[in-house]
Amino acid sequence: MMSLRVLTGITTSGTPHLGNYVGAIRPAIVASQSPDSDCFFFMADYHALIKCDDPARIERSRLEIAATWLAAGLDPERVTFYRQSDVPEVTELNWLLTCVTAKGQMNRAHAYKASTDVNEAAGEDADAGITMGLFCYPILMAADILLFNPHKVPVGRDQIQHIEMTRDVAARFNHLFGQGSDLFVLPEAHIEEHVATLPGLDGRKMSKSYDNTIPLFEGGHKAMKDAIAKIVTNSLLPGDAKDPDNSHLVTIFEAFASKEQTQQFKDELRAGLGWGDAKKRLLDLIERDIAPMRERYEALMAHPEEIEALLQAGAAKARATAAPLLKKVRESLGLRAMQAVAAPIAKAEKKAALPLFKQFRLEDGLFYFNFSAADGRLLLQSTGFAQGKEAGQWIAKLKNEGVAAINGDTAISLSEGVAATDVSAALAVLLAE
Amino acid sequence: MMSLRVLTGITTSGTPHLGNYVGAIRPAIVASQSPDSDCFFFMADYHALIKCDDPARIERSRLEIAATWLAAGLDPERVTFYRQSDVPEVTELNWLLTCVTAKGQMNRAHAYKASTDVNEAAGEDADAGITMGLFCYPILMAADILLFNPHKVPVGRDQIQHIEMTRDVAARFNHLFGQGSDLFVLPEAHIEEHVATLPGLDGRKMSKSYDNTIPLFEGGHKAMKDAIAKIVTNSLLPGDAKDPDNSHLVTIFEAFASKEQTQQFKDELRAGLGWGDAKKRLLDLIERDIAPMRERYEALMAHPEEIEALLQAGAAKARATAAPLLKKVRESLGLRAMQAVAAPIAKAEKKAALPLFKQFRLEDGLFYFNFSAADGRLLLQSTGFAQGKEAGQWIAKLKNEGVAAINGDTAISLSEGVAATDVSAALAVLLAE
Repeated sequence: MMSLRVLTGITTSGTPHLGNYVGAIRPAIVASQSPDSDCFFFMADYHALIKCDDPARIERSRLEIAATWLAAGLDPERVTFYRQSDVPEVTELNWLLTCVTAKGQMNRAHAYKASTDVNEAAGEDADAGITMGLFCYPILMAADILLFNPHKVPVGRDQIQHIEMTRDVAARFNHLFGQGSDLFVLPEAHIEEHVATLPGLDGRKMSKSYDNTIPLFEGGHKAMKDAIAKIVTNSLLPGDAKDPDNSHLVTIFEAFASKEQTQQFKDELRAGLGWGDAKKRLLDLIERDIAPMRERYEALMAHPEEIEALLQAGAAKARATAAPLLKKVRESLGLRAMQAVAAPIAKAEKKAALPLFKQFRLEDGLFYFNFSAADGRLLLQSTGFAQGKEAGQWIAKLKNEGVAAINGDTAISLSEGVAATDVSAALAVLLAE
Repeated sequence: MMSLRVLTGITTSGTPHLGNYVGAIRPAIVASQSPDSDCFFFMADYHALIKCDDPARIERSRLEIAATWLAAGLDPERVTFYRQSDVPEVTELNWLLTCVTAKGQMNRAHAYKASTDVNEAAGEDADAGITMGLFCYPILMAADILLFNPHKVPVGRDQIQHIEMTRDVAARFNHLFGQGSDLFVLPEAHIEEHVATLPGLDGRKMSKSYDNTIPLFEGGHKAMKDAIAKIVTNSLLPGDAKDPDNSHLVTIFEAFASKEQTQQFKDELRAGLGWGDAKKRLLDLIERDIAPMRERYEALMAHPEEIEALLQAGAAKARATAAPLLKKVRESLGLRAMQAVAAPIAKAEKKAALPLFKQFRLEDGLFYFNFSAADGRLLLQSTGFAQGKEAGQWIAKLKNEGVAAINGDTAISLSEGVAATDVSAALAVLLAE
């Protein structure tokens, strides 16, 4: 059976809570156990730097997250599990992709636009407080993905645009430098429609932003118990019939229970089970899954050097895949070991080049343009214009009216030895494209 | 004597001409021979990718430029001579610096602004045709420099802004993550005031853009002779007295001659030396220097594998300097091998943190803010506002009027267990900063 390569990034800027476990960690680990999957899971610590300038927090979060995923059942023999920052190929590919990404596309990235919207609504400069990290991270994400050429990238709806950008830059790169064969696989976004979003203490989605989380491993059994005690319920007393279909406590229960267990729990609530007893049942149910993992988690946290060794081995596996691809990519760009180069530059250019109008501005502050033939020979050159618009208008005129547009105007001078027919021929080639 | 580290980048997108030799190559090599200098010269091939999408040209240019500098006398034992793309630490530092660079600063970079000016003047979208490579390259340049902590970076006037940006990002990084000791040296721009800019065939500055260059090595003696024959002079005949102080042929002569030789040449022109003979003298003078170099150049071009070996050795030397610094930089950011982490996140944060207003936008499209204490405890939280401005106005009101501003307004809710005095105390801490 052909295996499907799946790549998932994990941001390392916090401590995983129960909602992360149910919504992301558990399903990803289950998927990684499928025999036809070839999973790459990485800790996105370069991304974490964008929003977090507290080194102690990043250090702690990387450790907690690695220990959490391993304790939750990630098998490092089966999954390639690595830290982004242990794979130097990532930032190199990031730069190579930066060179072929249009700035206009980044201007339209949702996360960036959301930040400029907030600034503008607050009457501030659109880019106030925005770092280049925030602006550029869709390119880093494209590098994370393309370096491993996965078929499938599981993402939430808010990440679809990033996968589209990744596909765009991959397609552009293949077109410009692929020479017929595709360097990059265009990855498919796999939208996770059915991910359970666990409610938090107050019934809203469990999230650090809402300060309504139940911890996963940190704080031990006691922290779990204390959090569950704080789940908001209504004020019905033991013996009162309760409506289990409008209780987020039941929704949390459901995330850990079989159908039968859930049914029984609901029936008991309808029959008057008190909220205090219900919380005890919930605690027992969650702890049946989580307590053994927590034990592994604590053992791992006590031996960070063992996690380090696993991650180093993961990085070596990841680099064994990444390095050969990056080598091909570098070579496609002309970055290869030096060897006898047969053709001088002009000949090498002749192959695919087109005649070219080039606009530029010189040290005198004026705007210029020139026009060169497909073989790079300079055909004509303008004087300096005070306005770039004038250069643009001249180019348009030449394209529309041909070389006749010059008609003795001294603003345009043909290069030595160039005839008007040379310009006409080059214009014809350009316009035929 | 303390040695001064000097770093110089060489763009690899063309074939060096005589103007490059006189203006850049020769003075850099002379400077590198001074006993108190510790020179790093690198071929900026990552930069070359920004403007050139022709791999054959990049490949050829890298070879020609390496051969040119070596033939012109660069001593690879004395100078650390390497290709940027052989030092993976460069792109990693590039990303780390990207995370601490303000986008507003890049918006103001001259090279980017010149391009948007041209677009806007031509009535196009400001970012039309602009790649992220062009937009981001001042950060890559900062990484090129800071990775080696040079004291001095020789640049032209047009590059001063880039050195200032490099100093800014270095200072910000030292401040945020240096913990008292400076990770990065703030480099000094060394403005080359007295660099000879060689005139070209037509008397304007010698430049590929003007199509007025004299080749250096490529094309051999014949190409040099043919080019010199095309130097524009006036139409005075042999025997006519000539004005040597208004002849760019004399300026070119001067760049290769001693004072005495120049004086004699000028005297002969005044006495009627013909332009044809003058060009022969010029050719002989230049070839006295260039011909032996050209021989070395041709030998090197015939053995690219030897250049490759020299550059690999150079990269190893460069990385021996770069890698230990990058390790310190990574550790300062929290990217270090895992070890027992004593403090939980909250304690680690307590040290230097301040109370914090945070504005954000949630999936419902509304604008929110919250306010947390220095220890990270969430103090209050807003409802969602249709306009980000409203959140901004509330924050201003709280800062100006204190907790009294809330006055029962349901738009703001204090977290469970938080008293109004907690908010007042945190506001006082924040405003005292």
